[in-house]
Order: sequence, then structure tokens, then C-alpha cells
Amino acid sequence: MGDSERISVGIIGASGYGGVQLVRLLLDHPRLELAYLGGDSTAGQDFSAQYPHLFYAVQQPIEAIDLDKIAERCDVVFLSLPNGLALKMAPTLLERGCKVLDLSADYRFSDLSVYKQWYGGDRTDDAVAETAVYGLPELYRDRIAGANLVGCPGCYPTASLLALSPLLKQGLVDPGTAIIDAKSGTSGGGRVPKTGFLLAEADNSLGAYGVARHRHTPEIEQICSDLTGHDVLVQFTPHLIPMVRGILSTVYATLRDPGLVRDDLLTIYGAFYRSSPWVKLLPSGTYPQTKWACGTNLCYIGIEVDQRTGRVIVMSAIDNLMKGQAGQAIQCLNIMMGWDETLGLPKYSFYP
Amino acid sequence: MGDSERISVGIIGASGYGGVQLVRLLLDHPRLELAYLGGDSTAGQDFSAQYPHLFYAVQQPIEAIDLDKIAERCDVVFLSLPNGLALKMAPTLLERGCKVLDLSADYRFSDLSVYKQWYGGDRTDDAVAETAVYGLPELYRDRIAGANLVGCPGCYPTASLLALSPLLKQGLVDPGTAIIDAKSGTSGGGRVPKTGFLLAEADNSLGAYGVARHRHTPEIEQICSDLTGHDVLVQFTPHLIPMVRGILSTVYATLRDPGLVRDDLLTIYGAFYRSSPWVKLLPSGTYPQTKWACGTNLCYIGIEVDQRTGRVIVMSAIDNLMKGQAGQAIQCLNIMMGWDETLGLPKYSFYP
Amino acid sequence: MGDSERISVGIIGASGYGGVQLVRLLLDHPRLELAYLGGDSTAGQDFSAQYPHLFYAVQQPIEAIDLDKIAERCDVVFLSLPNGLALKMAPTLLERGCKVLDLSADYRFSDLSVYKQWYGGDRTDDAVAETAVYGLPELYRDRIAGANLVGCPGCYPTASLLALSPLLKQGLVDPGTAIIDAKSGTSGGGRVPKTGFLLAEADNSLGAYGVARHRHTPEIEQICSDLTGHDVLVQFTPHLIPMVRGILSTVYATLRDPGLVRDDLLTIYGAFYRSSPWVKLLPSGTYPQTKWACGTNLCYIGIEVDQRTGRVIVMSAIDNLMKGQAGQAIQCLNIMMGWDETLGLPKYSFYP
Amino acid sequence: MGDSERISVGIIGASGYGGVQLVRLLLDHPRLELAYLGGDSTAGQDFSAQYPHLFYAVQQPIEAIDLDKIAERCDVVFLSLPNGLALKMAPTLLERGCKVLDLSADYRFSDLSVYKQWYGGDRTDDAVAETAVYGLPELYRDRIAGANLVGCPGCYPTASLLALSPLLKQGLVDPGTAIIDAKSGTSGGGRVPKTGFLLAEADNSLGAYGVARHRHTPEIEQICSDLTGHDVLVQFTPHLIPMVRGILSTVYATLRDPGLVRDDLLTIYGAFYRSSPWVKLLPSGTYPQTKWACGTNLCYIGIEVDQRTGRVIVMSAIDNLMKGQAGQAIQCLNIMMGWDETLGLPKYSFYP
Repeated sequence: MGDSERISVGIIGASGYGGVQLVRLLLDHPRLELAYLGGDSTAGQDFSAQYPHLFYAVQQPIEAIDLDKIAERCDVVFLSLPNGLALKMAPTLLERGCKVLDLSADYRFSDLSVYKQWYGGDRTDDAVAETAVYGLPELYRDRIAGANLVGCPGCYPTASLLALSPLLKQGLVDPGTAIIDAKSGTSGGGRVPKTGFLLAEADNSLGAYGVARHRHTPEIEQICSDLTGHDVLVQFTPHLIPMVRGILSTVYATLRDPGLVRDDLLTIYGAFYRSSPWVKLLPSGTYPQTKWACGTNLCYIGIEVDQRTGRVIVMSAIDNLMKGQAGQAIQCLNIMMGWDETLGLPKYSFYP
Repeated sequence: MGDSERISVGIIGASGYGGVQLVRLLLDHPRLELAYLGGDSTAGQDFSAQYPHLFYAVQQPIEAIDLDKIAERCDVVFLSLPNGLALKMAPTLLERGCKVLDLSADYRFSDLSVYKQWYGGDRTDDAVAETAVYGLPELYRDRIAGANLVGCPGCYPTASLLALSPLLKQGLVDPGTAIIDAKSGTSGGGRVPKTGFLLAEADNSLGAYGVARHRHTPEIEQICSDLTGHDVLVQFTPHLIPMVRGILSTVYATLRDPGLVRDDLLTIYGAFYRSSPWVKLLPSGTYPQTKWACGTNLCYIGIEVDQRTGRVIVMSAIDNLMKGQAGQAIQCLNIMMGWDETLGLPKYSFYP
Repeated sequence: MGDSERISVGIIGASGYGGVQLVRLLLDHPRLELAYLGGDSTAGQDFSAQYPHLFYAVQQPIEAIDLDKIAERCDVVFLSLPNGLALKMAPTLLERGCKVLDLSADYRFSDLSVYKQWYGGDRTDDAVAETAVYGLPELYRDRIAGANLVGCPGCYPTASLLALSPLLKQGLVDPGTAIIDAKSGTSGGGRVPKTGFLLAEADNSLGAYGVARHRHTPEIEQICSDLTGHDVLVQFTPHLIPMVRGILSTVYATLRDPGLVRDDLLTIYGAFYRSSPWVKLLPSGTYPQTKWACGTNLCYIGIEVDQRTGRVIVMSAIDNLMKGQAGQAIQCLNIMMGWDETLGLPKYSFYP
Repeated sequence: MGDSERISVGIIGASGYGGVQLVRLLLDHPRLELAYLGGDSTAGQDFSAQYPHLFYAVQQPIEAIDLDKIAERCDVVFLSLPNGLALKMAPTLLERGCKVLDLSADYRFSDLSVYKQWYGGDRTDDAVAETAVYGLPELYRDRIAGANLVGCPGCYPTASLLALSPLLKQGLVDPGTAIIDAKSGTSGGGRVPKTGFLLAEADNSLGAYGVARHRHTPEIEQICSDLTGHDVLVQFTPHLIPMVRGILSTVYATLRDPGLVRDDLLTIYGAFYRSSPWVKLLPSGTYPQTKWACGTNLCYIGIEVDQRTGRVIVMSAIDNLMKGQAGQAIQCLNIMMGWDETLGLPKYSFYP
């Protein structure tokens, strides 16, 4: 394939927020071309019936999901569907030679028994699931490069793992002391009309949910266990914040060496993320604002050490729909295709 | 009935925003007592299953709607239901001796053909509808005092009519020049999960809707016609604002006498609303903020005259769920019962 | 003093958010009467020049701060000023026979060396400071009853201590494991124009600040130490949330007895707060939303136990300007006067 | 100059919202290069001291304003300063051969007596001001192409004039009937800390300001007069909306020909804006949301005709900091340089 040729891309689940982000990112990507938009409840509509502001940019209709047709037209397929649906489509698409990037939880777990425990349901695609790679490039860049099936991380796990990984990988903290207090904008709940996500309910308010039982917990734990080489349990609490986009993860852990200071950690993180263009380590004393990441694929990280308590506090900020979802999926695809991983992705937010 | 006795009140449609406002207002009202909470989809639940923050204040269950039982237990019934349902219940409740205050559009129109034209549907309760009084006390206080059935005004008509009425009543403007540009928080859309009212959609955005065809238009026109004695058409445009509560109506009209200045109008409005404790006329040069009215039954009015164009600009601010809905209904009931119309209603917002 | 007599109250620092809350609360309080509004930069203005929406309710001018005049007119004085100013006024006011409630940090510390370390400055009022009582009624009700000088708690300490105290008092957790991740609306920053608090900056964004060095830390630690009988260090991290009012404290701690379950803790908390009308313990499985507390003096508490990690997670929600500031000050005054501590304070929020 | 050469650009007033937008847009523009960042109060700081999220993208320091140095380094200078400052710098910069684009009001008026009447102050740069072109490309594209000095329009005039111009140019309405009810996010107030723009004050509220005297009025009237060939007075009312970015202008006018229907007007507008890539005319029955334009240089226009009243209602939505300010300035520069006017400007918003 020549340097100027474009890859044909299909997006299944076109009408949700994951879908519209992918469509939007494709519009600016120099090597990708939208070849298929698939949906279920919206099949037959124009895409702009769902998103009128893009009427001048996307003429594509949303088509009923037909795997044969998709495989015929697309080199790559993004599945942006509720949990439990991708696992019925991915095997066929892979067999027909498509690369598949799944944005749901279906292919995030190397051990399917964990998936079944937290997500329920039957599934018999173990052989396929075994080939899936967890799509967090900052940790698994090499494996992603060779993958045909990528299970893209959840939004919370992305922010949380980017904050925690250097600590765990270097053995700087006891993983059992790790507490992740995460805060997300309401777009994380998707474009599904639910009472609790109405502006009238969620605006000017704040609360935790899924305490001690949110399904992103085992996903975080799986990667932490992989990094440390032994089973890890983490404390993870998500909160709903009255804003549209953005996640802040505030991560606490007790340092094994109480002599470490902030600048030591900044050095260690700097080394860890040296080859990761999408992680931006903030200068000493600066903490991230989620708005800085909005509309970009960036993760901003700020670090503090509390000498009094011996704890490190790491704060990471991402756009939940970009680095936390669609942007990271494109980043993975860039790597799978052997392109620069920043290709076609937004680097600078508009502020304010 | 003695001075300290309480009136038994039923609320049908307990789980919506109108319902919860009424329940909340009853908690502070010295003469009203909650005797019945009726709902449809939520029947059988505790009220606090819908509104957990009031678990300590309201133990009442939500009951299936049984008109016999309601009439037996209640002196007064508030109907807070989607349009088209009250008209099936009010006749029976009135027959059984209840006073009825309807928060829907069903009893706002003296001419039912207008209702049918804008709201559709069949109805055969003309005889009952004829007895209904439009529940805007600042205009129809005396009639409300003698009413058994009150059709409580819509939120936009309340704000708009309080801004316009003195101009029309005194013949100061040509009604045909009146333009009402209204802005509402999203709670006006009710507690129904709809995509456009999700925080992720509505926050940080703004748009008009129902342009030239919103169903509050004929309601405003009906009262304007009543005030002027001839048919009036008004231009009314509602906008959805990224906030929870509040309506601002910005009303434009051309003055018949171009010599009138701001202070003349303040004097005229002052006289018009002299006996209306819930209308607060702002000092010269001050314009209302919706937040000032939030959590109160107040309507703040500010007035400006543009000498260059000969127009008067009147701005009115209310809390759409209070003076625009439940608060006004209680105000009407106070009047119907012969009590002070401010009884049990909040007068001061918490700011900010 | 007869049952119907009113107490004369002065408020110094009338133009800030603390001031306007106090003024607002006085308007509904049956035993308090506003006798003096004092300010510095706003002296000479009408109060309604600062808060136009109350023009019809408060005619009081803001006067220059004259301690003699204040003491003459007022039985009770609320000081709502930046840190470091109350300590120059309280001694005189006390000497003249006033009861003083200070909303700043000046009288929160029993050990002034802690104050000086975190707040700086010189002060020589040790003798007076020794008589001050920490104004958290749920812990120090009896001492407040006999006090003439009350140092009202900070907003974060109020929410955090109400969440933590039963755990510490009963020795259920190791205090060293306690992590407080707190989230506040921007009104906590006061009515001072600062860039970071502009809507354009703070809206649709989220970040931590003062990590490992916020001045509410020693205040929380002081009370924790008092409760446990030994020195306690806590991890405290505040975050700025894009909303006007409200604080949520999410508190983590490791249970000493891993066999305790959620309902055990609910029982223990229930007993602890049995006589505390302003603390509302949520039913099992319900977590607080800050909006539920808005405009009230309530603290809502929800509890979860994570059996996997052995940690308890306690969430407390308050209105930072009410239970976190002015409401709590009135609650203290109610206790000082021997009145019911709920007198004149709002119990039910308006929702949504 | 070769096709790949870059133009050197200076930005004076780097720390405000206009400045940061320009800096941000330059980062993506293929033909522009940042050569100078000038500021007053922030001179000597790194740009990232003001905007930490761009630390990795902009290493440029903010320098004291030295016109000689600027002229030496820059081919083009953007002045993004408070009103009344550009007029002291533009003459010198032009003399030294720079092209100048001013974002303030200083060069928007062809008749300086109008400027003096509404903005006050003395000025003696009439000769220079005469050469200035009003930077609204949709109306003055040709003149902009030949200009060395461009007075970039205000945010409200941009939205309002794009909505009104086809009506006026084609004589479809009586200009005297035009009413512009405009709504803006708070970033329009700039990065200056003012109480009314604090989140705690402006959030969850809404109000009009500058009624009948806002300084964008004569700017709109000047262009309307130019379009119609006679003096026009318009009614213009701005409102502050609780959101960061975006302006919606709702424009009302009475049609001269009551037989015109919506689709007629869509056709007329379509023809008028055929060569204007940044104006997007929405399909029949669709009205613009400001969010659609956010982060882009687009203006979305929706049209409705009210057959009952004979009025046309035109709604236009822009991002006040992009098409309403910095984006439009870059669009003008593109035209001045003979480039495609869409070069380097964002076309698609991120939604939601």
C-alpha cells in the first residue's frame, strides 16, 4: 500500500458518542477513509439525522449491520457498541481479514472468567479472545503493533493506569495501598436517555456511584497484576461531575521509600513516558485540569508527595471520549498500521 | 374550619418535577397537609424511591390513581400530569366536592377550540372547562378566589404575561409589535429522559426551539386578547438554556407615545402591581437575573426604554418550577381558601 | 428574656458569601433580628447595592466597622472576614459582653502554634483563644452551649469530620489509613474576583489544588486527635468542581475488623448521630448527592464497605455555605441561646 | 515568497482569551509562524505561566511591547488589546510595513465620530483609520484582500450581521423592524477577574445587560446602513448565558412580502452565502445549537417564517472566540495573503 493510499474504515455503533468521535476524528485523519457506518436502531437514517451539525461533512447513511458487507468494504472495523455485542461480531470480521478495534469491555480481559464474573453472560469465543491485545499503547505498544484484535481500555482504567503504572512497574509503592478516586463528566454515560444524566438532575450536583463494585475495577486490577507480577486489588471509586467531558483520577499510594521527593518521581515518570507522545508530565507544583485535555488525545499527569504521610498523590486528566475512548482507538490503529501514533489526532485543546 | 385546622391535599403526578415541588412546598405550609400522592408508573413505590433526599420528610407511598379514594381523603387536588389527562379526572373530582388545581394545559383555555387546535385530541368536558379560571393571580385574583377549578398557567406565559400586561392593559403599546424572546432552564422539560435534555447534550450550549409554533403561544395570546379586548397575535420564541431552573422573558414592544421614559413606566408598573406581593419591580437601571428568583415564588421585573428606537424592553425573571408552576398553584390555592396569598411560600432565594 | 423577644445580631463582613447567607438566614429566623451590617470596602453602601435581589427585604446600610457601636447595638456578632481579622475584634467584643461567632480560621485552633504554622502572622490573644469552642455541634454540643466565643469550622472539615468521627471515636479504623478526597463548588472561594474562579475558566473543568498543604488539614487533624486521644495525620485533597454550592467528601479508611459489614456501620453511625437532627444517614446502598443538601443545613451520609479490600468508604454531602459555614454558625447560636438547634434553619432542599 | 514559506506573526495581548486563541490557531496553521508574543502586565513571563496546558507547544516568552522589535520580526501583527490601545500602535506598525489586524473596536468604524460617541477618548489617527477595512469576509472579502489594516468585528456584530445581511441586502425587510436578541457565553467578558463573571455568580443564571446602550449597537448599525444605503437603527440586547463559549443571535424582522415562506428564504440565503465556506445554512426546520460551532470558525444559520405574524426569525450560532474573534482574524489574514480562506482553521466541532 502506497504512502498516500487510504485505509477503509467501518464504524459499527455510529450514533453513540463513541461513534461520533470516531467519525469526527476520521474527518481529519490523512490515512483513514470512512467506508461504512453501521447502526441498529438508527439504520436507514442519514448520520446527520443524529448529528445535524455534521450535515456538510458526512453524507454517509447509517446502514443495518451486515458483517459480510462490512468485511467486503472495510480493512478496519471499530465496534462501538454496548457490552456483549462485539463478541458476536469480532470473530467473523477477523476471519474475513478485517482488523478489529473494540471499544466495549468484551475483549479487555485476558481471563474470560473475570469478564463473566463482572459482566455476566455466556460466551464461547475464548480462542478469539486470547488473541486480543489490551489497547493501552503506553504499556502494550509492541503487542498492539502486531495485533489484529484490540480491546480498547475503559475511560477510567486509561486515566487510572497511566497515573499508577510507573509506581507499580518500578515497585515504588505497595499496590494494596492504592486508592483511585476518579471523577468523570456525564458523557461517559453515553447518549442513552437516563434520568440521572439529565441536565436538570446532574447539573450543580456531585456524587459517587458504583462504590466498591464498578466494573472498571477488575480491568484496572488485571493490568496492575500484569505490571507487578502478582495479584493486585485496588480501591476504585467513580464520581459523576457536572460537566460534559473529562476524567480526573486522583491516585493515592504509600511510598515504600519515604525518602523519595516529588522531583524524584517526576524523573521516574519522565523516563517511563519518554517515548509516549500523548502523556504530558506537568512541571513540579502544577496539577492537571481536565479542560486542558478536552478535545485532545492527551493525558496530563501531575505528581505530589506528602512528606508528612509518606504518600504519593498522582493526578491524571484525560478527555474521556478521546484518550479515554475514540482517540485512543485511533492511536492503537496508527500503531497497528505502522504509522506515527500521533497521526491525525488533536494535540492542542481550545481553551477556555 | 378553625384557624389552625389543616386542609387535606392530594397530588396526582407525584414523581415529576411539578409533583416534587408541590410536596416540598407542602412541607413548609402551615395550613396544608399531604393526604394523597398518586402516580401511574411509580404507583406502589415510596415517594423517597423517586426522591431519596426527602426520605426523612415524606413517608407517604405513591398510590395508584383512584378518584374515589382521592375525593374521600382530599379537600383539594393538584393534578400535575401530562396534557390530556386532567380533563379525564377533574370533572369527577369536582363532582365529589374537591377543589381542583390543574398544572397542565387542559384548563387554561376558555375557548376549547383553541385547545383542540394546538393540543389535538377529543374532549367533551366543555361544561366543566367553562368554569375553569386561569390561575394567574396578578390578573385574575378575584375570579380565582371564587373558583373550584383553576387552570394554572404555563411557565413561559407566566413570565411573559407579567412583563406584558401593564403595557397592554394601559394601551401603551401596539400589541402587534410585541416580541417575546424567552429563555428557560432545562427542568422545564420535565423529568422525562430525552436525549436533548441530557447534560452532555444541553450543557454549554444554547438554542431556540418550537419557533413560531410553541404551544404556549395561544395561551399568551388568549390573555393578551382578554386584556386589550381584541384579538392579539404575539411573536414568541423559547430557548433552552444550560441551567436547571429559571426563565427570563425579554419582551420588546413599540411605545405608542415615544415621549415615555423609563421612570414613567416604572411608575405605571408600580401602580399595576401595587397589590401583588410576588412581583418585585427592580430599581431604575437594574435588570433581573433568573438566579434571584430561584427557589422563590417571585417574579422580578426590570424595564428599559430605548429612546433611539421608541421601544420598551421589559425583562421578567421567575423560577419556572415555582412561580412558573407549583408555587403559583399554591398561591392560587391560598387565594381560593381566603388566606394571605404569600402563606407558606418562599420569599427569599439563597444566593449565590 | 421572654419567649417572643428577639436577639440583636450584628454581621461583620456583610458583602461576602458568608455575609449574605447569614443575612438570608436571619430573614427566616423567628428569634434573631439584624441590628448591624458592617463592612470595609463596601461601607456606606446599601446592602442591596451588593445584592440587588434582596432590595425589598433588607434596607440596612453597610456601616464602617465600629466595635463600640456594634457592642452597643448587638447581643451577638458574627464575624465573616478573611483570616487574621477576627482576632483583632473578638477580644473587644467579648469584653463588651457580646457573644461572638467567628467564621474564619482565627478561633478554630486550641493550640495557637498550629495556627501560626499554617496561617502565619503574629497574635497575642492567647487568653481569649483559649476560651474559644470549636463550633461543630455534632461533636461539641455541650461546650458550645456554654461558650461566648465559637470558632466555626471550615467547610471541608465539617464534611470530613462528620464522615470520619464515628469511625475514629469507636476505634473502628486506623486513623493513619484515612484518606479524604473532597470536592467543592466554587463558591467556597468567596466573592473575590480571581481568574481561576471565572466561569470561563472553572466551568466544564475539574482539578485538585493545595495537594498535601491545604490549610484545612491541620484543622481536621486537630479534631481527629481529640477524638482518638493521640496525634493523627490525615491525607486531605480538595478539588474544585464546576458547580456553585456543595461539598462531597469521600473518605477511605481500613477497618480494623474486616468482618464488619455495611449495615453494622450504619447502625453505629445511627447511634452516633441519634441526637443530631442535621445529620441524615442514607439507607443502605444509597449515596449522597450534593444537590440534596443545597439550601439546607443538612449533612447527608452514605456508607459502603468493600469486603475485597477491607476498607470503609464514607461519603458526606453538605452545602458549603450552609452546614459548611453560615447555617452551622446559626445552629451554634441556637445552642448557645438554649433554643432548639434546628430553629429557623432550612430543612428541605428544592430539587432539582 | 514560495509556497512553503511561513509568514512571521506577532500577537500583542498574548495573555487574554483572544491571544490564546490566536496562539492555538497558529499551532495548526501551515503558513503562519509565531515570531513575537507581546504583553503588558505579563511581560517577562513564559506564555505557559498563563496557559500551563500549552507548555509543551509554546516556549515563547511574553515580551514587553516594543514596536520597533515587533516590526523587525513580524510580517503581520494581531492586536488583541482593550479598546483604545491599538490606535496608538497601528500607525507605527503600518508605517514599518506590517500588516495589522486589530481585534478591538478601534478600527471598526469608518466614521470616527461614531467611535468617539460610544467609546469616548481622543484620537488623531483619522488618516490611518480611513484605510481600515471591516473584517467580515462574507460582506467585504474583496476589500479585505487589499487591506493592510483590518478592524476585526465584534463577536455580537459577527453573529448578528451574518443573520441579517441577506435580508437587508435584498430589501426583504424593513430594517427598522429588526430586533436582535443575542446570547453569549461568559468568555466574551475576557480573562479579567470581575465579580459578575465568577462561576458562583454567573452559573445557573441568566440576565440581559447593556440594554439599549451596548457598544456593539452602532457597529451593527454602521454595516446595516452600508448594506441598505440609508441610516438604520437596530434594537440590540445582549444576554449573559451560563456557558463558556458561543453566541446565539435570534433576529426578528417583519417581511415586506408576507407571501415569502421559509424555503424561499433558505434559497435566498443559500445564494448569498454560496461562496462563503464558513457559513452553514441548516436544512429546513433545523435550528442551530451554539455547541455545534464551538471550536470551529463556522457560523450556523437557521431560518423560520411565522406566517401568522409575517415575521422572519433568523438564528445564527458562532463560537464567540473563533468566528467571533480570533478565527475570523485568521480568516481575514488568509484572504489578505491570497490563500484559501479556510486554511488552517478548524471545520468540525467535537460533540458533545
